[in-house]
Amino acid sequence: MNTHWTLFKITTFWESHGNALWVVIDWLPSNFEIDMDNIANELGRRKPGQSVITTQRKENDENFEVLSGIFEWKSTGHPITIIVKNENQKSNDYSNIKDLFRPNHADLTYHLKYGIRDYRWGWRSSGRETLSRVIAWAIAKQYLKEKFGIEIFAFTKQVWEFKAEKIDYKFIEQNILRTGDEKIASKMIEYVEGIKNDWNSVGWIIECHIKNPPSWLGEPVFDKIKSRLASSMLSIWWALGFEYGAWFDTVNLTWKTYNEWFYNTHWKVCSKHNNYAWILGWISTWEDIIFRVAIKPTSSIYAEQKTVDINWNEVDFQIHWRHDPCILPRVVPVIEAMSAIDILDLVLLNNSKK
Amino acid sequence: MNTHWTLFKITTFWESHGNALWVVIDWLPSNFEIDMDNIANELGRRKPGQSVITTQRKENDENFEVLSGIFEWKSTGHPITIIVKNENQKSNDYSNIKDLFRPNHADLTYHLKYGIRDYRWGWRSSGRETLSRVIAWAIAKQYLKEKFGIEIFAFTKQVWEFKAEKIDYKFIEQNILRTGDEKIASKMIEYVEGIKNDWNSVGWIIECHIKNPPSWLGEPVFDKIKSRLASSMLSIWWALGFEYGAWFDTVNLTWKTYNEWFYNTHWKVCSKHNNYAWILGWISTWEDIIFRVAIKPTSSIYAEQKTVDINWNEVDFQIHWRHDPCILPRVVPVIEAMSAIDILDLVLLNNSKK
Amino acid sequence: MNTHWTLFKITTFWESHGNALWVVIDWLPSNFEIDMDNIANELGRRKPGQSVITTQRKENDENFEVLSGIFEWKSTGHPITIIVKNENQKSNDYSNIKDLFRPNHADLTYHLKYGIRDYRWGWRSSGRETLSRVIAWAIAKQYLKEKFGIEIFAFTKQVWEFKAEKIDYKFIEQNILRTGDEKIASKMIEYVEGIKNDWNSVGWIIECHIKNPPSWLGEPVFDKIKSRLASSMLSIWWALGFEYGAWFDTVNLTWKTYNEWFYNTHWKVCSKHNNYAWILGWISTWEDIIFRVAIKPTSSIYAEQKTVDINWNEVDFQIHWRHDPCILPRVVPVIEAMSAIDILDLVLLNNSKK
Amino acid sequence: MNTHWTLFKITTFWESHGNALWVVIDWLPSNFEIDMDNIANELGRRKPGQSVITTQRKENDENFEVLSGIFEWKSTGHPITIIVKNENQKSNDYSNIKDLFRPNHADLTYHLKYGIRDYRWGWRSSGRETLSRVIAWAIAKQYLKEKFGIEIFAFTKQVWEFKAEKIDYKFIEQNILRTGDEKIASKMIEYVEGIKNDWNSVGWIIECHIKNPPSWLGEPVFDKIKSRLASSMLSIWWALGFEYGAWFDTVNLTWKTYNEWFYNTHWKVCSKHNNYAWILGWISTWEDIIFRVAIKPTSSIYAEQKTVDINWNEVDFQIHWRHDPCILPRVVPVIEAMSAIDILDLVLLNNSKK
Repeated sequence: MNTHWTLFKITTFWESHGNALWVVIDWLPSNFEIDMDNIANELGRRKPGQSVITTQRKENDENFEVLSGIFEWKSTGHPITIIVKNENQKSNDYSNIKDLFRPNHADLTYHLKYGIRDYRWGWRSSGRETLSRVIAWAIAKQYLKEKFGIEIFAFTKQVWEFKAEKIDYKFIEQNILRTGDEKIASKMIEYVEGIKNDWNSVGWIIECHIKNPPSWLGEPVFDKIKSRLASSMLSIWWALGFEYGAWFDTVNLTWKTYNEWFYNTHWKVCSKHNNYAWILGWISTWEDIIFRVAIKPTSSIYAEQKTVDINWNEVDFQIHWRHDPCILPRVVPVIEAMSAIDILDLVLLNNSKK
Repeated sequence: MNTHWTLFKITTFWESHGNALWVVIDWLPSNFEIDMDNIANELGRRKPGQSVITTQRKENDENFEVLSGIFEWKSTGHPITIIVKNENQKSNDYSNIKDLFRPNHADLTYHLKYGIRDYRWGWRSSGRETLSRVIAWAIAKQYLKEKFGIEIFAFTKQVWEFKAEKIDYKFIEQNILRTGDEKIASKMIEYVEGIKNDWNSVGWIIECHIKNPPSWLGEPVFDKIKSRLASSMLSIWWALGFEYGAWFDTVNLTWKTYNEWFYNTHWKVCSKHNNYAWILGWISTWEDIIFRVAIKPTSSIYAEQKTVDINWNEVDFQIHWRHDPCILPRVVPVIEAMSAIDILDLVLLNNSKK
Repeated sequence: MNTHWTLFKITTFWESHGNALWVVIDWLPSNFEIDMDNIANELGRRKPGQSVITTQRKENDENFEVLSGIFEWKSTGHPITIIVKNENQKSNDYSNIKDLFRPNHADLTYHLKYGIRDYRWGWRSSGRETLSRVIAWAIAKQYLKEKFGIEIFAFTKQVWEFKAEKIDYKFIEQNILRTGDEKIASKMIEYVEGIKNDWNSVGWIIECHIKNPPSWLGEPVFDKIKSRLASSMLSIWWALGFEYGAWFDTVNLTWKTYNEWFYNTHWKVCSKHNNYAWILGWISTWEDIIFRVAIKPTSSIYAEQKTVDINWNEVDFQIHWRHDPCILPRVVPVIEAMSAIDILDLVLLNNSKK
Repeated sequence: MNTHWTLFKITTFWESHGNALWVVIDWLPSNFEIDMDNIANELGRRKPGQSVITTQRKENDENFEVLSGIFEWKSTGHPITIIVKNENQKSNDYSNIKDLFRPNHADLTYHLKYGIRDYRWGWRSSGRETLSRVIAWAIAKQYLKEKFGIEIFAFTKQVWEFKAEKIDYKFIEQNILRTGDEKIASKMIEYVEGIKNDWNSVGWIIECHIKNPPSWLGEPVFDKIKSRLASSMLSIWWALGFEYGAWFDTVNLTWKTYNEWFYNTHWKVCSKHNNYAWILGWISTWEDIIFRVAIKPTSSIYAEQKTVDINWNEVDFQIHWRHDPCILPRVVPVIEAMSAIDILDLVLLNNSKK
């Protein structure tokens, strides 16, 4: 329950109050050269304090250490363990929340399920766990690109009414919201800054493109690509939904508007649109795999809140910590991470039969 | 890859051209009395030919046989195997599709991935596999209700612009579309009949309610309830999306409109709305779990279609078989089935720690 | 708990009272041509009634049927399901054992664990389940030989004081005890016939040779070759022990008598003896893997026995069915089967990293 | 492949050259009070340098640190991570073995399988990994005893011709060989000291008793108690065999000498001897489970050895490090550990169905 997938798999197990956090990445083939700067770079993309629209809490998350699985910059074929120290663990003052159940937090359910909780920390409920996944991404990304030419790009598709329409992958890293459309970026950012100044937070949609998939990914019944992607995306803390192909817009489509033909263009069978994501019989073709994830507004907000305490009395309280008005740009690499883990596991599963 | 979940799990493995289909249901506790009529009843809800808006192909799917795991109407604690004979397996004439790749079918990808295919059948790509899941549902349903008081209801939420708003669970089985709102049912049905007469098919949205969950379901990291439900729903052939809580509408919400308080009503902590589905720290509370699934229009349509053949030439073809204009009412029990399998597995996982 | 191993895996789930028994074999690569006569042949090697020293009960176990996974004699890449009808299921008279717990049978423990049992049958405790494994063997055997040149031979190593010393693989199928040493065979057989005439049964040791393993089989920690072989061998009903390398004779060895050097012979590193089975770091080399399994005397014997009934009173009873004085020659293919499943799963695991 | 078992499971992943080693223990029920001194005590039983007959290398293995899963001395229900620092990691001089393959080590096979190795360390092939298992034992032991009254005792059964016959559990910790028979202990120890002085090492047999098992442990087909125990025992570095019940002596038994009756003594069905270990239908009864493990002589010996180098030339070499003439007393807690992990996982599996 703390390990994800079958062959290429990640295991995480730390709790948010420890002095370090880490990930175990298993089943990467041996003798693969790993670019360490890339790991630091991806951790940097996820860390807090990147820009005015993410939390100002500082973490030196790029200072990772390899504990196993890599020898002289090459994978050994054994589990790769990478650790990041928690440098910003000085306790906040928790006395005002000690005896109450914060809304939208694990306080109540951990109390009921485990019969034990630590009011200071979220233990396994902390979204900081996603850092572990981003480390796996940094490695899987290199392997997928070098061995198979597969690349993955996630970006902000929509905030409020502002939608990215024309996607330029190169632009994603050039704006603090990690959106892909230069035209809409400044309006999006202005809106999110307003949300922040209002002590508020906001929901949004991320889109992800898996470029150049091989034409044999996926298993036909329970391990369909779409089933695995949905599982992985919804294992991300803030995700409320997953959609692909014709999206939830399918409700407005009939077969006549939805259906797709095969056309023969340059000796490659292809299509005119993407209503079914060109995953056929739940096996990928060479067409890009595109999906979207809906994300909820951050719940740790600097504002007065209402709840009940452990004696079931209604109480008011306030959290004084820094918060993310829009955790969005930090979620982008997490979504890329989970996609890459899905894809690489399916690659290795398929390879095993060769 | 043909088994779903950890303790309470189903295994399916038959192919669409066999003379029978079946399911293995593992890890049901022993000595539980099983109502066999209920199995027949649920198979009846999924079978073709139920009404004018489903395919007119006839299958006597209710004629199942128990091969193992049940002795004198009680579970033995060993794997339960249930088989249904394929009675309508007389071959269609497939000569016109022998050498081509049907769009939206597994023909092309099975050809590429496995290097072998049988043009007459979809093998493991056939949605008829969902019959196996409905058998598991018929059993899990009884166990969940009797032991835990949990009930599950899925129904048609939306077709085209017609939305079910006020849900009456008793009405679901009283209308051929299995919608839950008496006011909108006739309009929905009229619309779908029009689609059928136009040799067309249509997409739609199903909503599912898990009633009376225990306040300890779910594991906090990779086996979150939402992650498991998303995985299971997207493992259904026709599903394009999963959403819960504030849905994809989260993009229109800020924390101020989204956030939920705890209120103390009748000594039970509860909420005013459902934006986060009251799954806290990814553990269920006693609030109902509600989610939606987007379904694509059926692709096997009686109409002229375009594609390429195995020599990559563009060709036209037509399929002459009966089709479902709206497979919707038959998908309802499949969605209930996958929910029940998810929930019962999480129940047993939690029990193991007691 | 009814599935064995990770990629190449078998699932069995039938109970001994059903009218058929079967196996699901998953993850065989697609497009592999399967010799059906070989399946019949292996089933014939395991079936009852082969010779005077096995039970005279007759089963036409060679009459199997393929339900999925094979199309025009080739694997499809999907699960292979093979079924054998139970033709000899006419009930014995069980009235004398209805209310008692037979010694060395599952009667008592099934009563305690499951709270439900059927006195007529052993359900999942029946050794007839091993038939399923032999089917998998018949397929895995072909794949291992054709793709990797790996062959597996098991044979009777010892009965009473009679030991096979000089092994001739071709002789194994030429004697009813399936021993490998022509010199000792007639003495062994004579001894076992005496046991049979005395309404008795006997224990013995089987040895198994895995020839031409690749020099990369096995995983270093929990999935060591020896760990997997031990698990598989002890999952066989009648096995009491597993040993390899220097055997239990290790207790009589010191490093000076035990240790092995590498010698360079014909550009291939090799050894003079087999004390450590040449599994180094728990990865196989090109040296044969050799192990032994200890088997208990059959317990279903035509003789007066003592036990207690469900009211805990001591009682005498007698079973009137035919029995095997020495199930040995029928266990040989079961041991080959479990070895082959182990090896093929480790092969596919290793391939996945290529 | 780095995780063992299903619910209560351990994951290890460190390599022998790291500066710390650790274990993740998953699925211990929450709110269980853990005695930390017991962990230190069990680590002390396994560590080097305990007495004149184990290696004189010193490790302060008792200095462990809890990183997750325990809060105020109670289990949180989340994964328990415990770490031990490697304090004795100053490098030996490896120049003489850099380019050769040590016999009975992983050098050759890691070279062939992974294409990469570090001559200084064994990576995942190091038996020091068993320290991780002993940590899990220290916790599982407490849980099994407190919740179920189950206790586990392993001890030296035989070295050379010296056999322990009359076992006194209290004596085990009172002698440096951890044998259970006071009469034979001094002869055994004298023999092992002679082996040590001769720069030699020796094989032996350990016996293990699982006391007071519940009468419902084990699954009937692939997860039989004996299959799981065999798998776990053979996953221990130095194990060459596993046997139980009538042992390999079965070859000398017939049904008439082997068979066991049920007798009713004090309203409890029991037996006169232990030929089948009273595991019936592969479910435990209330009789103790007893098994033996054969252990090979240690291979890292201070003596001249022969081998080949990476150019396949024959060479001589010598290892100058300290060694264990008889690693036996240090293996005792490892065998207890693996038994406890097996048993506790089977306990939780059975509980899940309640």
